[in-house]
Amino acid sequence: MPSISQKGLKMPESPIRKLVPFAEIASKKGKSIYHLNIGQPDIKTPEVALKAVANSNLTTIEYSRSEGSEEYRTKIAKYYSKHDIHVKHDDIIVTTGGSEALLFAFGSIMDTDDEVIIPEPFYANYNGFSTASGVTIVPVISKIENNFALPAIEEFEKLITPKTKAILICNPGNPTGYLYSKEEIKKLATIVKKHDLFLVADEVYREFAYDGIKHHSILADFGLEKHAIVIDSVSKRYSMCGARIGCLVSKNKEVISTALKFAQARLSPPTLAQIASEAALDTPQSYFDEVKEEYVKRRNTLIEELQKIDGVKVAKPKGAFYCIVELPVKNSDHFAKWLLESFEVDGKTIMVAPAAGFYSTPNVGLNQIRIAYVLKEESLIDAISILKEALKVYKD
Amino acid sequence: MPSISQKGLKMPESPIRKLVPFAEIASKKGKSIYHLNIGQPDIKTPEVALKAVANSNLTTIEYSRSEGSEEYRTKIAKYYSKHDIHVKHDDIIVTTGGSEALLFAFGSIMDTDDEVIIPEPFYANYNGFSTASGVTIVPVISKIENNFALPAIEEFEKLITPKTKAILICNPGNPTGYLYSKEEIKKLATIVKKHDLFLVADEVYREFAYDGIKHHSILADFGLEKHAIVIDSVSKRYSMCGARIGCLVSKNKEVISTALKFAQARLSPPTLAQIASEAALDTPQSYFDEVKEEYVKRRNTLIEELQKIDGVKVAKPKGAFYCIVELPVKNSDHFAKWLLESFEVDGKTIMVAPAAGFYSTPNVGLNQIRIAYVLKEESLIDAISILKEALKVYKD
Ligand SMILES: Cc1ncc(COP(=O)(O)O)c(C=O)c1O
Ligand SMILES: Cc1ncc(COP(=O)(O)O)c(C=O)c1O
Repeated sequence: MPSISQKGLKMPESPIRKLVPFAEIASKKGKSIYHLNIGQPDIKTPEVALKAVANSNLTTIEYSRSEGSEEYRTKIAKYYSKHDIHVKHDDIIVTTGGSEALLFAFGSIMDTDDEVIIPEPFYANYNGFSTASGVTIVPVISKIENNFALPAIEEFEKLITPKTKAILICNPGNPTGYLYSKEEIKKLATIVKKHDLFLVADEVYREFAYDGIKHHSILADFGLEKHAIVIDSVSKRYSMCGARIGCLVSKNKEVISTALKFAQARLSPPTLAQIASEAALDTPQSYFDEVKEEYVKRRNTLIEELQKIDGVKVAKPKGAFYCIVELPVKNSDHFAKWLLESFEVDGKTIMVAPAAGFYSTPNVGLNQIRIAYVLKEESLIDAISILKEALKVYKD
Repeated sequence: MPSISQKGLKMPESPIRKLVPFAEIASKKGKSIYHLNIGQPDIKTPEVALKAVANSNLTTIEYSRSEGSEEYRTKIAKYYSKHDIHVKHDDIIVTTGGSEALLFAFGSIMDTDDEVIIPEPFYANYNGFSTASGVTIVPVISKIENNFALPAIEEFEKLITPKTKAILICNPGNPTGYLYSKEEIKKLATIVKKHDLFLVADEVYREFAYDGIKHHSILADFGLEKHAIVIDSVSKRYSMCGARIGCLVSKNKEVISTALKFAQARLSPPTLAQIASEAALDTPQSYFDEVKEEYVKRRNTLIEELQKIDGVKVAKPKGAFYCIVELPVKNSDHFAKWLLESFEVDGKTIMVAPAAGFYSTPNVGLNQIRIAYVLKEESLIDAISILKEALKVYKD
């Protein structure tokens, strides 16, 4: 029998999706489940986007240009100009979700065994993309005690080797909700310039910055024209995760022309979703204001409820819609399974993401979970009361 | 300045897309261009598919399951059963186009420097996917003189090394239009079983088999359960290239569970396009009959017109909608550029794909082009008359 690749064997299971079979069994047994595990917002997609697709009058769904239609890219550039990012349409390649932008970025700047430094905990699928690309993630630990702030410059410099090609940050952070300050971005700018590295910033949660704090893109005024690669996506911004539209943005022409070759090999990003995404750019500011208000309310409620539980530690997130929660358990993987298999309150239970999958250092985060606050307030309150009850009876 | 990856530098330019800038200049100068270069059919997408999207009533465009919705996969399995392919929904992973299915297949079965044997000329983007995956293509030459039939078994066996992991065929073939016989598939089955290899078949043109000849899937009755991986796509079948829906099919559970990890890392195939693709499965047989009739007519006209030109050689394709044409020129790359830059008949010219990009052996196919017969008959006749005039005056 022919054998699977080593790479395939090494591909990590998604910490978010690997519990799905257990959830399916629980559902079949009639349990209802609060999904705190996955970043699929319940918010409605803007109507302009849905209508644009319904009324498109296409008769043939054709390939678009590999880099995305010029009209759409021009409109994205205009959107960016409102966020202190001054780019032209040809600094942008439209991708199939932020996911594909990450793959293109990894492929364009790193070879097998090259290294990328990432503050951990980080978005779990960075592990998958790095394995798929043959690249090594070198984690630099950020701590719940410090609210997951950027580790000191010296911590980065200790890790830089001749194989280091890039630093990758997620801002605002999934799973931490951390929002980097201007000072922190400046620090990173200094390191990448000094060591000739790329700085990749996953800014898919740009719009979700709370408490009046400003989001700072690495493509704003930091002098990183040659170094900065921004990963973006419509998934969360317009609650249209299933569209699968994102983009890669860089003012480094070599990066763009290289990423374009990867884009050409796969022909085209999705055409229907590009129509929706282009229209979504006309979403009125009131939509974002309402959505932000809703998330802030949810976050406040969630943190408040969590802080009432003995032995639970949580850092208040300033952005995105996730938080890392430390629990009084030894192994949150086991706890999360147990919640689905063996626990319920009035026929209900909760599904959470064990946090170990968000670290690449082994045996870190074992007592943590990630919670996505993508449910309505009442549901969050009920879900956290279930967590509280569960922690009372759970034994590990 | 940080530097691009070696992989990125090696990524090939698409032979289909690299002439686009020249075409744009020609267009701007007012030339009208017949596009014979790209497999973007002018055929209409089935109405059921377009209507399903327009009437979907989605309020949030959510992620689907990473492997595609169960309903859709169940319906695909039913479609396959009509083509002698007996699989279940969980033998199928829905992908973002056949392109992504190829990437998942390469990643699941091959590591850096592993080898895949492919009869050439082959679909040019196999070069891109293999570079992106760090894999080496070992070409086995099929010849225009033999109508691009499968090379002899001995030719394959000569090329097998300990690094060989798979044989990849495209059936019907792009760019050759070649349709493999049952005997040829049996021969391949013998080789892959004897040498413990995977057999990957890109069957995205399955439905386009002409002259009453039957298409034989490697998943039909060849006993290749452990070896066969089929790549499929809705792009050409329903003329919905921009949907970006395809799938990877295998009865080898290890292949599926590995490919699923790649699928989970990128979260989800496009949701709107899945709606269109699921509905497209209800397309009546009359649609395909009409489409096939149209392509046969175009093919016959094209071949007839080409054969009238002195010094032109062409193999009559039995499937897909491409053919390789040998021209009395030294360098078809130069000729193709010249057609766009310096030639016209009544303000019109043609755009063709130089064939060298469909070979991985250097300096082969230099006097060949690929023509896609995705235009109406009158346009094809006019286009070939332009080719004829061009060959009269072109000097290389
Ligand atoms: C930090 C981060 N980056 C990228 C992605 C990829 O999202 P998509 O491919 O839907 O744009 C996600 C999705 O959850 C994410 O959280
Ligand atoms: C032979 C072959 N395989 C795969 C593809 C990929 O197509 P898609 O990604 O649109 O399914 C194409 C597109 O032209 C093709 O010709």
